[in-house]
Amino acid sequence: MKTFNIQAPDEALRPVIQDKIDNLNKPKGSLGRLETLAMQVCLIQQTLSPSITHPCHLLLGGDHGIEREGVSVSPREVTWQQMVNFTKGGGGVNMFCRQHGFHLRIVDVGVDHDLSQVPGIMNCKIAPGTRNFLHEAAMTEDEYTRTLTVGIDLADACASEGSRLLCLGEMGIANTSPSSIWMSLFCHIPLSECIGAGAGLNHQGISHKQQVLTQALDRFLSTVNRQPSIDYIIRYFGGFEMVAAIGAMLRAAERQMVILVDGFIMTACALAACQLYPEARHYMIFTHCGDESGHRRMLDSLHAEPLLSLGLRLGEGTGALCAFPIVDSAVRMMNEMNNFDNAHITKYF
Amino acid sequence: MKTFNIQAPDEALRPVIQDKIDNLNKPKGSLGRLETLAMQVCLIQQTLSPSITHPCHLLLGGDHGIEREGVSVSPREVTWQQMVNFTKGGGGVNMFCRQHGFHLRIVDVGVDHDLSQVPGIMNCKIAPGTRNFLHEAAMTEDEYTRTLTVGIDLADACASEGSRLLCLGEMGIANTSPSSIWMSLFCHIPLSECIGAGAGLNHQGISHKQQVLTQALDRFLSTVNRQPSIDYIIRYFGGFEMVAAIGAMLRAAERQMVILVDGFIMTACALAACQLYPEARHYMIFTHCGDESGHRRMLDSLHAEPLLSLGLRLGEGTGALCAFPIVDSAVRMMNEMNNFDNAHITKYF
Repeated sequence: MKTFNIQAPDEALRPVIQDKIDNLNKPKGSLGRLETLAMQVCLIQQTLSPSITHPCHLLLGGDHGIEREGVSVSPREVTWQQMVNFTKGGGGVNMFCRQHGFHLRIVDVGVDHDLSQVPGIMNCKIAPGTRNFLHEAAMTEDEYTRTLTVGIDLADACASEGSRLLCLGEMGIANTSPSSIWMSLFCHIPLSECIGAGAGLNHQGISHKQQVLTQALDRFLSTVNRQPSIDYIIRYFGGFEMVAAIGAMLRAAERQMVILVDGFIMTACALAACQLYPEARHYMIFTHCGDESGHRRMLDSLHAEPLLSLGLRLGEGTGALCAFPIVDSAVRMMNEMNNFDNAHITKYF
Repeated sequence: MKTFNIQAPDEALRPVIQDKIDNLNKPKGSLGRLETLAMQVCLIQQTLSPSITHPCHLLLGGDHGIEREGVSVSPREVTWQQMVNFTKGGGGVNMFCRQHGFHLRIVDVGVDHDLSQVPGIMNCKIAPGTRNFLHEAAMTEDEYTRTLTVGIDLADACASEGSRLLCLGEMGIANTSPSSIWMSLFCHIPLSECIGAGAGLNHQGISHKQQVLTQALDRFLSTVNRQPSIDYIIRYFGGFEMVAAIGAMLRAAERQMVILVDGFIMTACALAACQLYPEARHYMIFTHCGDESGHRRMLDSLHAEPLLSLGLRLGEGTGALCAFPIVDSAVRMMNEMNNFDNAHITKYF
């Protein structure tokens, strides 16, 4: 079993950081969320002059056994097709990475297609898709550990090239399904309230998805004698791309990196990561509240107020990338704005 | 009197633009607000491949006679001090302009201080502050026309350097006061519901502001025989920086430029501009919903759903600048994303 040494940031600097923020030449508090973001990043980095150079984006791909049950509007082949497409630069994620200067890593963690010969895709494949959790655990204990390691190694690779900010996205047809079940189990919310339209299911499709997931959850609960462990819940339902994301998040928190958390699926991964290591929460910035049913409630359970609400539901980490300039502004505020003394401004009340 | 020739964008292209958006390789509608933004910019520019190069920001400064009544938490001298500070690059507006590549023009339209010798400030001063609208019209008819012309000339200057996007901000202690009165008169909302804390008034301060503005509005209404004209309302209460913003917005709309509208005060200017020329609304993108009381209702009356809600209340156009990357993403989406055909992706439902 993988373990992580994650500490909450030392709070001793908080009053000094607050003092610097309050003395920038602006009415107190007038930069709103930028000020709380700046505080968070300063505490993470233990500095008054934070920096988020060399931001990295991990686009993690994987397929899901549960897709065989028809829970998604898109067919499974879209996962690998999109992975290939991302290498050509024409996806939403490419556009955002170019716009905001992110180093993009496209990683096959468990796509059901041989991508080993495709230039631009890192081959970290554990298996060609997870098992179908309607009948059995999505991954074995060994696969689970190896998948966490994939995430750890990726976060390390980003850190070693100087990145202090990690953004994560996913490509995996059907991965709202495990996300909904994790949410239900970790937030203690009835499953029906955790299920939404995914990438575009109609009413009938949602109803079918609900039926399949309810059956899967009931079977799972009937096979466990006592309260299942967090690790077991994660590996029973999770996708390879999702577990790799959890490993990367936990490693990033361990290394005091800022973590940008995207929409519904990445929030579910963040939730799972915080179930394992609650202190990881301090390193996470929640970026986008999508329309997917239940996303807001999952964010609430993490005491997270997302930066954006733009109706994005593309995945790939696009919501997080879209919010990056706001985090960048918060960092710039600390480094570039004058204070009242050197600006010769009558200090506001 | 200044007149403008503002046309709504031709709608004939709408289905063609929608078709292009729907065929980008993503589930239909999955880029949410980016898609509606892209549609708006494409219609404005009458193209499938929009461009917002050379964005310009106008930071317009002016003082207000009503400040003498103690309606603001900050003293009047802060206006000129901040104007000078902006020339040194240490203000919030400078940071955002650098971050997003905006050409910043700092313009004295009516600051109560001689700034003519300060390098980096354009001298377009109409007068050193407006008159006190508790007793008389803030500006004469002649001043009003000349101030609109300042805005027109500024928009022309931006357009002639190749800018297709205009962002506006203001620096003017006490300028929430005229904004509240415009909102009350133009939206038919009781004045008390249009008044907020400005840059940080306490309960007592707000109560005093409400008393002063109610008195001013009552006196104004008692001196007009019939429904006052829109122009008269604007010049009776408006600041020089606000009327210049209206002139710039109307000229930008006339020239089919995209207009980024900032917080409470710039929304009040946009409201006034749309009262004069309703078609100007098509060219406006509303960027930020602040906490200032009533801002949301003013946005509602303009059928505007702002992009951000980050609790910013600094002014200077910082909310609009902060939202710029989202507009940029929408434009990039149209130009950089592959469609289903050239991406070889199974088209989603």
